[in-house]
Amino acid sequence: MTIPAHRIAFGEHLRDLRQDRGWSSQEAFAHHVGIDRTYISGLERGRRNPTLDVIVKLAQSLDVKPAELLATIE
Amino acid sequence: MTIPAHRIAFGEHLRDLRQDRGWSSQEAFAHHVGIDRTYISGLERGRRNPTLDVIVKLAQSLDVKPAELLATIE
Repeated sequence: MTIPAHRIAFGEHLRDLRQDRGWSSQEAFAHHVGIDRTYISGLERGRRNPTLDVIVKLAQSLDVKPAELLATIE
Repeated sequence: MTIPAHRIAFGEHLRDLRQDRGWSSQEAFAHHVGIDRTYISGLERGRRNPTLDVIVKLAQSLDVKPAELLATIE
């Protein structure tokens, strides 16, 4: 599967924000958000295609605005 | 169904951007984007939950950055 560039950008930015906010493990962050660790892993690798509802939930969990999560997508 | 506030904000902003960009009808815009008119209508009323792939496609069709589409969500 070819992963679209916007998914790669989203995933890398999500990982950066997670680590910047002190969630060094995907497991701990996933528990904080209330979604499965494998889903977080899939998002960070660009393999999952999150819905708006999920993007908003992730943003709230990271204490950023939802638009910030998409800031690196051209 | 109670529609989440972030979906309402997204839908209203999408409608504003569509009209500002000169797409007065949902039908013409839907054809431009390549998705169904009823889906555009559902998005603008907050009844649909678009994926990241769809958000990026809408943004490209409106000639804005994807983050701009989420700019009004708190």
